[in-house]
Amino acid sequence: MGISYSSPLSPSLSTTTLNITHSSLFPCTSKANPGTISDSTFSHTNNISLNNLQKPTKKFGSFYYCSHNTTCLGSKIVPLKCFDKVREMETQEGIAQKPTIDIHGIDEELVQKMVYDALVWSSLHGLVVGDRSVQRSGKVPGVGMVHAPFSLLPVTFPESHWKLACEVAPIFNELIDRVSLDGKFLQDALSRTKKVDAFTSRLIDIHSKMLEINKSEEIRLGLHRSDYMLDEQTKLLLQIELNTISSSFPSLSCLVGDLHRSLLKYYGEHIGLDSSRIPGNTSVDKFAEALAKAWTEYNNPRALVLVVVQPEEHNMYDQHWLCAALKERYPFHLQYCLSCLYNTHNVRTIRKTLGEIDKDGEILPDGTLLLGGKEISVVYFRAGYAPTDYPSEAEWRARVLMEQSSAVKCPSISYHLAGTKKIQQELAKPNMLERFLENKEDIAKLRKCFAGLWSLDDSDIIKKAIERPDLFVMKPQREGGGNNIYGDDVRTNLIRLQKEGSEEDAAYILMQRIFPMVSPTFLVREGICHKDHAISELGVYGAYLRNKEKVIINEQCGYLMRTKVSSSNEGGVAAGFAVLDSIYLN
Amino acid sequence: MGISYSSPLSPSLSTTTLNITHSSLFPCTSKANPGTISDSTFSHTNNISLNNLQKPTKKFGSFYYCSHNTTCLGSKIVPLKCFDKVREMETQEGIAQKPTIDIHGIDEELVQKMVYDALVWSSLHGLVVGDRSVQRSGKVPGVGMVHAPFSLLPVTFPESHWKLACEVAPIFNELIDRVSLDGKFLQDALSRTKKVDAFTSRLIDIHSKMLEINKSEEIRLGLHRSDYMLDEQTKLLLQIELNTISSSFPSLSCLVGDLHRSLLKYYGEHIGLDSSRIPGNTSVDKFAEALAKAWTEYNNPRALVLVVVQPEEHNMYDQHWLCAALKERYPFHLQYCLSCLYNTHNVRTIRKTLGEIDKDGEILPDGTLLLGGKEISVVYFRAGYAPTDYPSEAEWRARVLMEQSSAVKCPSISYHLAGTKKIQQELAKPNMLERFLENKEDIAKLRKCFAGLWSLDDSDIIKKAIERPDLFVMKPQREGGGNNIYGDDVRTNLIRLQKEGSEEDAAYILMQRIFPMVSPTFLVREGICHKDHAISELGVYGAYLRNKEKVIINEQCGYLMRTKVSSSNEGGVAAGFAVLDSIYLN
Repeated sequence: MGISYSSPLSPSLSTTTLNITHSSLFPCTSKANPGTISDSTFSHTNNISLNNLQKPTKKFGSFYYCSHNTTCLGSKIVPLKCFDKVREMETQEGIAQKPTIDIHGIDEELVQKMVYDALVWSSLHGLVVGDRSVQRSGKVPGVGMVHAPFSLLPVTFPESHWKLACEVAPIFNELIDRVSLDGKFLQDALSRTKKVDAFTSRLIDIHSKMLEINKSEEIRLGLHRSDYMLDEQTKLLLQIELNTISSSFPSLSCLVGDLHRSLLKYYGEHIGLDSSRIPGNTSVDKFAEALAKAWTEYNNPRALVLVVVQPEEHNMYDQHWLCAALKERYPFHLQYCLSCLYNTHNVRTIRKTLGEIDKDGEILPDGTLLLGGKEISVVYFRAGYAPTDYPSEAEWRARVLMEQSSAVKCPSISYHLAGTKKIQQELAKPNMLERFLENKEDIAKLRKCFAGLWSLDDSDIIKKAIERPDLFVMKPQREGGGNNIYGDDVRTNLIRLQKEGSEEDAAYILMQRIFPMVSPTFLVREGICHKDHAISELGVYGAYLRNKEKVIINEQCGYLMRTKVSSSNEGGVAAGFAVLDSIYLN
Repeated sequence: MGISYSSPLSPSLSTTTLNITHSSLFPCTSKANPGTISDSTFSHTNNISLNNLQKPTKKFGSFYYCSHNTTCLGSKIVPLKCFDKVREMETQEGIAQKPTIDIHGIDEELVQKMVYDALVWSSLHGLVVGDRSVQRSGKVPGVGMVHAPFSLLPVTFPESHWKLACEVAPIFNELIDRVSLDGKFLQDALSRTKKVDAFTSRLIDIHSKMLEINKSEEIRLGLHRSDYMLDEQTKLLLQIELNTISSSFPSLSCLVGDLHRSLLKYYGEHIGLDSSRIPGNTSVDKFAEALAKAWTEYNNPRALVLVVVQPEEHNMYDQHWLCAALKERYPFHLQYCLSCLYNTHNVRTIRKTLGEIDKDGEILPDGTLLLGGKEISVVYFRAGYAPTDYPSEAEWRARVLMEQSSAVKCPSISYHLAGTKKIQQELAKPNMLERFLENKEDIAKLRKCFAGLWSLDDSDIIKKAIERPDLFVMKPQREGGGNNIYGDDVRTNLIRLQKEGSEEDAAYILMQRIFPMVSPTFLVREGICHKDHAISELGVYGAYLRNKEKVIINEQCGYLMRTKVSSSNEGGVAAGFAVLDSIYLN
């Protein structure tokens, strides 16, 4: 086993070169206006030269801001110790906000031991993914497995922010449900997006069709994940996005916490860490419980849970763990068994692609969804969120078929649309939350998490973004951060859109760019440990289930921490190198 | 996922071609003489033509025998329904002894589901090995993993034989310990072998050296596995060999039982099998317990357990599971912690190759073994059993170093030699067991398990073996079945040795060839299920630990079932395709 260290200090960074920091918008009052700013992905790779420096002003849009104290050594962005000021760069360690977990203090031999033990632990405990370099690894379980990439140690996270993220999960669950019921709101809010985004347009068409036939969803199941970054300067936990479809890693996120606890059990004393400060994570069990209860609500013991999957899925083990939990921990009652064709004592799942569902699926006149002749009670999507999931009309037919059925959809088309970035931006508008929620405290809590979000028809913000593109992210209505626009490209694109005067601007929203703390981290991938500077994103899972009469489940379920090198272009690490992580409360 | 079926009935086999069966030696009395017959490997690929048929006689050597009713369709050897008679071949199913588990009755869709579930289960639960086709998979944990090959369902096994195999395990443990103490017996018995087998010769040299310096082992630890096959005709459970070094699969054997129980929990009712009839398997825990107790006997909480490993080890996860059990389940007492350098609360292990041990190891004048300055209390060999493990003098130096030390060796050189085939054959001689054991019942039980074993200086048996080579196996003093000689090669080699009149005959022993039942089996490897005819070998683990005063552990620990296609040259399956299995008692 080899451990390679990409140098935490590239030569140019250990000099006293003058560099400047980002400036960042942040809400200065506790009652933050929803019109704040956000960043949607892990990467911030800008290199702002001295020439580009513009002193920030006190007021910006509806918010105050100050310059931003961050460390992003990998990308040669270095922090300043006070606002609005260019300072000589100090040593990396001196400048970086001191992390609670000081990995520089751990000797290399100990790191090697821990990495070895962590790799063994992962292999024995199913913390694995399909290895893309091995044929069939995305299709056949048990073939071409490799440990999931992980951070060697948990990332320090403030307990207060952790609690807040947990507290708002049920409120977001409720919000999504309320929004999903307001078909007109969804249609109106997305009307301009529809014209310029073909994928979202197809989703909206399905939604329209359901509105036309007055389709109602009496049993509604949401398995969400709300993603956050902790802005280093403002110390605010700001929402990146809310996933209402195919929220990934409910299972592996639990395992990586177990891995870290296991490591700290044996090595914690050496490095001054206490495993009890890693919060428990129950997302896989809670998701399984929610699926089982939705299945129970549907009330046919012979019916199956359908997991909609991609034809190739290298993250299949995350899904398999969930199905295993469902199978092993939620046997149904004996009276069901007696009437059950197969006499099985568990909630059974089947995995099918959209293409297969189109081929084998049908709806009976009463709305029953059949797949290969077998009744489906719950449709759990782990595919269908990206345009590439619909290579032909067959996949769209399958989606419509399921939507029209009486099966419980996780998510329904309404839930799916309620999780789009455009809706996120609409909900961030003043007084919009009040349209869906009553409790003022709840509303205040949600709003506290909102980053700045604007549509591109706001000329003031466009002007600001052209002036200071480094403070914004342009986000299209696409899942996944790969399509986001940063830095000078924001300016270029905004100017182009202004000139063209087309409707294309409706395909984007603008978000405040968030600058999370950068910490030296051990990232382990493909059996190799890299030491690098990294940033982290917290996802908090929420489960919601209700029927016609009442809410059955509305809770926070657990969390996902993902950590990524702060500049993916540095240190010999491939772009997008994110690893699974857990949190260490401080 | 694909399931390929290698045809259970090749066209030539479903015809009525005349074929003949093996004849087999078997002891007819319950008080079987130790000079019985044995087979040492999985494969019996002979094709005996009608021309070769020789009617067996009633008396053969010191034993009675009759013709053998077996099914070996893969190799075109078909059974006869009565003794000494050539019969028309019936259909495959008609002839094969009906297995309790009738896999022909399981429909293909169900098999596919079970295979998929089994592959998922293996991946999630660490039933994995390194994939030889992936680089680094034998060196770095977590990289290039593939599910361990397994049988989809347990193999039927008679409960009485299972019980016998368990009962004799502690007796064999005791026997090995007694034999190990009789240095003269070991030296004398192996004196001729020494002249012709360079590897065994080196081991004997180490043993001689230890005798010279009057080295005694006060704490003696044995982790053995006694392997058996159930001879179909005689219904006798006959010992193949007794492994006293590097008994593999104590961990994965437990997991495959868990896998089968898991499958039967969900599918058992469909196929008429009850998971409770798979006996529990605790080999990994018992081995860990024995190692922990040996470590405790050594009585230095700072000392480590050294696992001696090969530089590349694709079966590393079997070893890692054992070390994980040791680490997690056997914390030492608090008073130890207080004096412990690292304050760890577990028995710590390190893995080193013989080459590394030569480089970093040393012995203090008091016999203490140090490795990189750290004291070693227990040396657990998972390497060192084959000539290829000693590519240079460095590895031999390491072996001698450890042997000279006061660390507990598992095994010591005496235990290692006591497990050689030559000693197995010597112990099978009349009145030999009585030299080491007192209890007549115990002796009778062991003898019941002995197959026919002869040295090549027995001219009577040589003559018989040249006449009927199909009834014998020539086994060299090599670990692993790959070097065994079968069929016409037995005759050729025996005639050559007779002509040459050299000492080379001492390199071999002759064993009775055992013909186990052949059953149709689903074998799963690399994500693909093959249906084929297979034979099985049972290994029963034993743990033995004693100090100067008393025996601390002497017990049966669990079992390993391995199943292999009955002819490795048929059905498109690579030679040596053995899978892990468990047993289903009937």
